[in-house]
Amino acid sequence: MNLNFTQAEVIAAQNGWCDALLSISSTYANSGIGAATKKAEAVIDKAYAYQYGPVAFAPTLASGKQTFRATREGALAYFVGNNPAYPSDTGFALRPWRKCEVVNEVIQLNGAQAITMGNVDLTDSTGKVTRVDKTWSFIKEPDASVRIVLHHSSLPFSN
Amino acid sequence: MNLNFTQAEVIAAQNGWCDALLSISSTYANSGIGAATKKAEAVIDKAYAYQYGPVAFAPTLASGKQTFRATREGALAYFVGNNPAYPSDTGFALRPWRKCEVVNEVIQLNGAQAITMGNVDLTDSTGKVTRVDKTWSFIKEPDASVRIVLHHSSLPFSN
Amino acid sequence: MNLNFTQAEVIAAQNGWCDALLSISSTYANSGIGAATKKAEAVIDKAYAYQYGPVAFAPTLASGKQTFRATREGALAYFVGNNPAYPSDTGFALRPWRKCEVVNEVIQLNGAQAITMGNVDLTDSTGKVTRVDKTWSFIKEPDASVRIVLHHSSLPFSN
Amino acid sequence: MNLNFTQAEVIAAQNGWCDALLSISSTYANSGIGAATKKAEAVIDKAYAYQYGPVAFAPTLASGKQTFRATREGALAYFVGNNPAYPSDTGFALRPWRKCEVVNEVIQLNGAQAITMGNVDLTDSTGKVTRVDKTWSFIKEPDASVRIVLHHSSLPFSN
Repeated sequence: MNLNFTQAEVIAAQNGWCDALLSISSTYANSGIGAATKKAEAVIDKAYAYQYGPVAFAPTLASGKQTFRATREGALAYFVGNNPAYPSDTGFALRPWRKCEVVNEVIQLNGAQAITMGNVDLTDSTGKVTRVDKTWSFIKEPDASVRIVLHHSSLPFSN
Repeated sequence: MNLNFTQAEVIAAQNGWCDALLSISSTYANSGIGAATKKAEAVIDKAYAYQYGPVAFAPTLASGKQTFRATREGALAYFVGNNPAYPSDTGFALRPWRKCEVVNEVIQLNGAQAITMGNVDLTDSTGKVTRVDKTWSFIKEPDASVRIVLHHSSLPFSN
Repeated sequence: MNLNFTQAEVIAAQNGWCDALLSISSTYANSGIGAATKKAEAVIDKAYAYQYGPVAFAPTLASGKQTFRATREGALAYFVGNNPAYPSDTGFALRPWRKCEVVNEVIQLNGAQAITMGNVDLTDSTGKVTRVDKTWSFIKEPDASVRIVLHHSSLPFSN
Repeated sequence: MNLNFTQAEVIAAQNGWCDALLSISSTYANSGIGAATKKAEAVIDKAYAYQYGPVAFAPTLASGKQTFRATREGALAYFVGNNPAYPSDTGFALRPWRKCEVVNEVIQLNGAQAITMGNVDLTDSTGKVTRVDKTWSFIKEPDASVRIVLHHSSLPFSN
């Protein structure tokens, strides 16, 4: 019995996040907001750990009193918008993302918990690349399910 | 034997970070860069986990190829500057900080590892307050030493 | 989010083991070997971690090449016997147990894993008490399921 | 940074225990009880985790109210005897052990904690082999120190 994360599992989880983002985006383009919202709910329930308690989630473009999205509702609002309780959210995952690449700087393995820090490069339909600084922490359950307990994303500092 | 973090220990570690920052700042004001550098080295060796491997450290004001400070040298340069290898670093801890307050949004306890996310409000000598979004992860060693393995700090997003 | 065991949860898991043993025993007395076997299977699947890999299980009365029961089949044979592959097993849980008491000597908490060591006193229908030295290690899953990953039981040493 | 145990580290820790036992034994034969006691103290301080709290230690030949040796004093008495507070202890490590072999049945890795279960075969100066059933749990500190937090040893069950 080995309850530890492997580096390969951690990288698979990161790529899974990228794939999920692209999938919400293409679902929105192809099937509209209803389908995209349903997709986002499935992604959040599978990839994040909201069922176990508050997730430490600070998304790239959230601010003010809604900077942190410790609840499932807050995460969903960030990804697909359309929630009057989160008026600034326009739906990050609804943008026409075409490519999502992770560039790791540090990966730390500590049993069933792992931390990663690095950049994620997001390319949209016009070819514009947005780089973000991103920290994740994942937990691995004994049945090998992997869930995000921490997600801090920020735009690079510019003078 | 209880190897777990308590919430009180986590909060003490956060306050210890604040105290250390103020201490480097006042050492610089009172005793100059040499003393401040020595102080910063002591702080880094005690509060961060560089002796065990790369720390996931993304400071507030670092950018470009030097966004991440996975080494002790990079952390020291960020805090006290004066390292030609890090030309953009002006020494974050040398600023005339007077007050440092942590406002926690999420604290997660997972055995000897803890994660916190929230704001840190830094007040300088003019009374100006800088708010940052900050994520930490601490590990607790069996002898109760606490060290930072993850530190992601970012300025709030503004439209 | 707190993924750690509490002492109360650990003690509840120990008492759950006792209750399960008594329950297999009474099911056998009341409903026969078929029902007792079904009960034991349910107990093993819920209380032990065989679904995640080999469990470190050394039962009190097992010996020789079958001292260790790292598989579900070996555990089931120990508890309810009637498996030609385990000819020495007479079904430990089929005995007329009436009472099961845990006397803890050491409890160690380490995040989602806990260790206990102490005695378990088993009283049968004649009032005879059998004391065993017992070590358990439990894991707690994020959904609060608790499972035994280690179980070493032995008769007290006598000169 | 990788805080996890590897299987090789776990096996090295087991072999270290064997080597330490043989070393106390030969120190006693060559240099007497004073030197053996000093050696045993060094072994206990390095290999066990008493400095962090009660260790779950049930030695092979201890019984009654002194079955469990949760304190350093109890462990020392077991290994080298000569402590009036532990009148049954004759000094397990003082016996003329010549060989110590670990035969693993189960090894479980869970971050900085590992569990092993199997046999240890001890050969004395007459060639007689004593087999014991043995469970260990080790913790690995961030500086790679390894310590025993659990040690349950028992003679094989015999009908």
